[in-house]
Amino acid sequence: MEKISTDAFPLTMPSSEKQETVCIFGTGDFGRSLGLKMLQCGYSIVFGSRTPGMSSLLPNGAEVMSYSDAAQKSDIIIITIHREHYDFLTELTEVLNGKILVDVSNNLKINQYPESNAEYLAQLVPGTHVVKAFNTISAWALQSGALDASRQVFICGNDSKAKQRVMDVVRSLGLTPLDKGSLMAANEIENYPLQLFPMWKFPFYLSAVLCVFFFFYCVIREVIYPYVYEKRDRTFRLPISIPNRVFPIAALTLLALVYLPGVIAAILQLYRGTKYRRFPDWLDHWMLCRKQLGLIALGFAFLHVLYTLVIPIRYYVRWTSNNRTVTQVITKKENPFSTTNSWLSDLYIALGMLGFFLFVLLGITSLPSVSNMVNWREFRFVQSKLGYLTLILCTAHTLVYGGKRFLNPSNLVWYLPSAYVIALIIPCTVLVIKFILILPCIDKTLMRIRQGWERNPKYSEPSLNGKTDI
Amino acid sequence: MEKISTDAFPLTMPSSEKQETVCIFGTGDFGRSLGLKMLQCGYSIVFGSRTPGMSSLLPNGAEVMSYSDAAQKSDIIIITIHREHYDFLTELTEVLNGKILVDVSNNLKINQYPESNAEYLAQLVPGTHVVKAFNTISAWALQSGALDASRQVFICGNDSKAKQRVMDVVRSLGLTPLDKGSLMAANEIENYPLQLFPMWKFPFYLSAVLCVFFFFYCVIREVIYPYVYEKRDRTFRLPISIPNRVFPIAALTLLALVYLPGVIAAILQLYRGTKYRRFPDWLDHWMLCRKQLGLIALGFAFLHVLYTLVIPIRYYVRWTSNNRTVTQVITKKENPFSTTNSWLSDLYIALGMLGFFLFVLLGITSLPSVSNMVNWREFRFVQSKLGYLTLILCTAHTLVYGGKRFLNPSNLVWYLPSAYVIALIIPCTVLVIKFILILPCIDKTLMRIRQGWERNPKYSEPSLNGKTDI
Amino acid sequence: MEKISTDAFPLTMPSSEKQETVCIFGTGDFGRSLGLKMLQCGYSIVFGSRTPGMSSLLPNGAEVMSYSDAAQKSDIIIITIHREHYDFLTELTEVLNGKILVDVSNNLKINQYPESNAEYLAQLVPGTHVVKAFNTISAWALQSGALDASRQVFICGNDSKAKQRVMDVVRSLGLTPLDKGSLMAANEIENYPLQLFPMWKFPFYLSAVLCVFFFFYCVIREVIYPYVYEKRDRTFRLPISIPNRVFPIAALTLLALVYLPGVIAAILQLYRGTKYRRFPDWLDHWMLCRKQLGLIALGFAFLHVLYTLVIPIRYYVRWTSNNRTVTQVITKKENPFSTTNSWLSDLYIALGMLGFFLFVLLGITSLPSVSNMVNWREFRFVQSKLGYLTLILCTAHTLVYGGKRFLNPSNLVWYLPSAYVIALIIPCTVLVIKFILILPCIDKTLMRIRQGWERNPKYSEPSLNGKTDI
Repeated sequence: MEKISTDAFPLTMPSSEKQETVCIFGTGDFGRSLGLKMLQCGYSIVFGSRTPGMSSLLPNGAEVMSYSDAAQKSDIIIITIHREHYDFLTELTEVLNGKILVDVSNNLKINQYPESNAEYLAQLVPGTHVVKAFNTISAWALQSGALDASRQVFICGNDSKAKQRVMDVVRSLGLTPLDKGSLMAANEIENYPLQLFPMWKFPFYLSAVLCVFFFFYCVIREVIYPYVYEKRDRTFRLPISIPNRVFPIAALTLLALVYLPGVIAAILQLYRGTKYRRFPDWLDHWMLCRKQLGLIALGFAFLHVLYTLVIPIRYYVRWTSNNRTVTQVITKKENPFSTTNSWLSDLYIALGMLGFFLFVLLGITSLPSVSNMVNWREFRFVQSKLGYLTLILCTAHTLVYGGKRFLNPSNLVWYLPSAYVIALIIPCTVLVIKFILILPCIDKTLMRIRQGWERNPKYSEPSLNGKTDI
Repeated sequence: MEKISTDAFPLTMPSSEKQETVCIFGTGDFGRSLGLKMLQCGYSIVFGSRTPGMSSLLPNGAEVMSYSDAAQKSDIIIITIHREHYDFLTELTEVLNGKILVDVSNNLKINQYPESNAEYLAQLVPGTHVVKAFNTISAWALQSGALDASRQVFICGNDSKAKQRVMDVVRSLGLTPLDKGSLMAANEIENYPLQLFPMWKFPFYLSAVLCVFFFFYCVIREVIYPYVYEKRDRTFRLPISIPNRVFPIAALTLLALVYLPGVIAAILQLYRGTKYRRFPDWLDHWMLCRKQLGLIALGFAFLHVLYTLVIPIRYYVRWTSNNRTVTQVITKKENPFSTTNSWLSDLYIALGMLGFFLFVLLGITSLPSVSNMVNWREFRFVQSKLGYLTLILCTAHTLVYGGKRFLNPSNLVWYLPSAYVIALIIPCTVLVIKFILILPCIDKTLMRIRQGWERNPKYSEPSLNGKTDI
Repeated sequence: MEKISTDAFPLTMPSSEKQETVCIFGTGDFGRSLGLKMLQCGYSIVFGSRTPGMSSLLPNGAEVMSYSDAAQKSDIIIITIHREHYDFLTELTEVLNGKILVDVSNNLKINQYPESNAEYLAQLVPGTHVVKAFNTISAWALQSGALDASRQVFICGNDSKAKQRVMDVVRSLGLTPLDKGSLMAANEIENYPLQLFPMWKFPFYLSAVLCVFFFFYCVIREVIYPYVYEKRDRTFRLPISIPNRVFPIAALTLLALVYLPGVIAAILQLYRGTKYRRFPDWLDHWMLCRKQLGLIALGFAFLHVLYTLVIPIRYYVRWTSNNRTVTQVITKKENPFSTTNSWLSDLYIALGMLGFFLFVLLGITSLPSVSNMVNWREFRFVQSKLGYLTLILCTAHTLVYGGKRFLNPSNLVWYLPSAYVIALIIPCTVLVIKFILILPCIDKTLMRIRQGWERNPKYSEPSLNGKTDI
């Protein structure tokens, strides 16, 4: 506990004597980078090496010694060596006794070994305080200072004082320590750098399935059908026209799926008459990935906007428009202005644009640094009130788009309705149920349940329940 | 002070014995969620309950006892009970003496009670150290780990050591404590979660008023006037054409209002010959919500861009263009290419796009995580230099849009000029005053005033003034 | 060390007696603002002033005394006085002995004095512990609470305990201290607020040069050439058409330049057979500003999208399209639909939009708050895999745009090929080399080198190398 010591503030002690010494075992990339960074932040560094004489490329100002000599210089020993080579540490058990060993290692695969590297280390050298740390930081980032990826350093360990000291070191390097509890968390911490967007997996596969399904659905209706019946080559619709049917459908469906678990949960609570029973696991998991679903929906909405705005510069559209004019002139057919058509066209475009605008707003609010600035009530206002408004606008956009054609049997192709009709099923369901749920009589019951009231109470205490919400 | 203790580092003490015990009064949602989270982070948890035998749903590993038994187990007692039920604590005064009571409660309304809950608690149980904390965190967020809304925990209390200990607890849960001072701040902290975008209120109402005014202004000119005089139904202009007049006007006016308080402040300082007199309150408030004004302006600009880009896919526009071509062919009228028209059209579009681009850049720089990466000089460069450039480009965009028609009396409808002419008043005023203010002679005086010089000095000292700016 | 003290937790001590006192020398703007903020956060403040009786505008609750009286009241003395006036401190050497002096001063120019202000102060008043802090915070931001620019406070000093105490003060004001090491870092810290986007300089100048070059290149081909040979005035192409040639070229080239240093580094490592030799400085610097290059490229891509989407609302384009239709009707020429043209047009637009979508995704991921949420593997996946996919899509977009005309000699103007042909050189080179580098045989060697293997090993140790990558 050098840094936060107990004696009176030493007024005259020369400052250079107060440098803390940290020992690093291993002189590979990571050890050298960490050593350099720590030297820059005012630590004394001693490297422990199997072959101290042969180590090159070490940062200026660091000493190199044999493992046992180096270990004696410091309370904190950072082990930058692969797990497979930990064995030699058993010979040093005596000199390491009572020291803090910092395990920085990672594996190549998730759950590669039965126990985590840090737990293995603790077992190998009993009498030491093993702390897991630094495994999420890359050597190159340390060297270059380009810590664009996370500055977070997950820490775990059984000894809270050892943990505290390592956290002080982490903080003094300009990184942010995050205490994850006891050494049992080491496994999770070691798996963390190997994860690839785990929360995005379900939303990603779901949207991929949606896209593929609706793509082939539209291909059947708009490419294969005309080819079979009219021998017309409509394949040029593949790059833009058909994706621009799939994207809005995917966006609207995914957006509705963001709000569906909320209404399902409300129905469950109403049915059970209590909130004190856990939701099924699938519902819990679904709720936790609503943000990801929403962001993917926003991505599709963005693509839909882009694909719509380029319509007038496409060759096909320009040719069609040009051709129509020419035909009209030649046939001398009248084309009177229809106020209804103008209203419908403008209304559906305007609804779509307002919906997209709110959607972008939702997206911006979900940026970590923005959501960190708002309180819980504001966050819920944006994500729930504005979110439902977005869903209403986007559903209305699709409904008006359908306009008079909606459910018109002449639009059926091989008994298949237009794709957007299918896309409306989930959003309309969500909106109808939500509308029922906010009817005063039902809303009141739901509010009481969420504040802790139970239809068949098993338990009651005047405790703080009001802060929870779904 | 268990965590940062004073004795020598205990080398051999088994780590499991060092867990800190925290007591939680109340077994409602919030208490249970907090308890579970603290257990996961390595604390021992004892719940205090009125009816210990009947408490269900408590996290595994926690003990439940009567209030007085539980209180004896820990120095820190977290009170997760509604303020209305605090009375029972008076019976525990003796056992609570000297302990840290953490008040986590919230109210349902702003300033619901004459004194804050935490102050009421401190008064109710004298001899304890009351610390306000955790009231901004929701139970659901704690449970699910989905701390998308803020991780900030506001702390206040009269005893700095008690505060320090609670802040250590907060930090170890992966949250960010923020010291707000003495218990007098509890009122503000308790009101915080009930606030709904207080800084946005004025900008929001202002822009709503602007929008409504210009909407009806344009409706009168473009819908009612043609109906009254020519009996033409122009209502189809309501969904897109008229909003697309209102949005750019609102955007430009609000953007100018971001820079207006700066020039007013400069004029005030020049007039007073000193910067050591407070600005009037309205000016101070205006300055503090410039960011919000600017972001709302950006929102309108974004809508204007969307509404403009969809022009060619609107039925009305396609019909008009088609009709014009047909008429031209039938009447065999020439339509010679006008280089001037092309220049004007392209120039005004280009100015608008560049202005929008810089505006988006300003918006991105105002994201908290981005503005955190830049120093004060860089922030001012972007927000002031680039900001004025944006204002100049957008004003020029509007001026060129007016082109030759600008102030042409034939554009008057019922003596009303085009809406964009009105929209230009504030931006042009701001730019003209700013231009005068940066004339060398005036700029020099202003700089001296801002560095602390006074025309009629009452006071002078060689102190650091240079870092302030408006 | 009042805040983290060593005695047992004082259970009954009245809390008001525990306020820490801090002394501020100087009563200028910054001193007053800092004093006010510290008072609000629960500190006692004593101002030291040359003329204590005449100081006005000081915050309520603060005392003002002579320098020597004030200094005796506190261990921590914050010097808010310009460097030029430090001399008077020499008279106070005795009373300042052992105290912590906090230097908050800034200079007007980078490296204005031979030594930093803080080092000068330490030299002037030996026996004190000088800590540099607060120089990046503005008085106005402190006063108004509008800390939109950074909350980071860089700290340096030779005495780690003095530093620790100042960091506690910083933290309690709601700011984030960042330890930068010994007082030698003061120079860098004092230069920091004077910097203006140092990492952006090279990318900015590079893109400016690119833009100017391609602008004139296109002007020669599209404005000067037609004027010289056909006496046609094509200047109306200057505001939109020509910028819309320059922007995509700049975007594509800069995006390729983001990935070029990576492949150069890989070639260097393959050639040298080791990764243990430093890259040349220019390559290191280039690698460190890849993010900036990429963001500028994104800016150009955004402008290109805007400039492309407005095409149909430009006067020139509407006139041309209208004219073509009229001509077609009059000459009665057929204009048959070309499926190939439709495919090419749609494909090149679709590739561009997908590329832009991924590019925006990359941009969002590079926001500090987003990149802070992902682990190293995820960050690399996005920036490397998605980045290359973006480059491939954008290059393909340009190739298909060229279509059949690509390298057609009839497109040469004064022997100059179309600008987009030149723009393709760097991206295609990067993609070809990258393709070669990921051939299994080469990739395997490269992986081994990057994991520490050397063709001519001088050194070997079983250390952690696997975490580095370029």
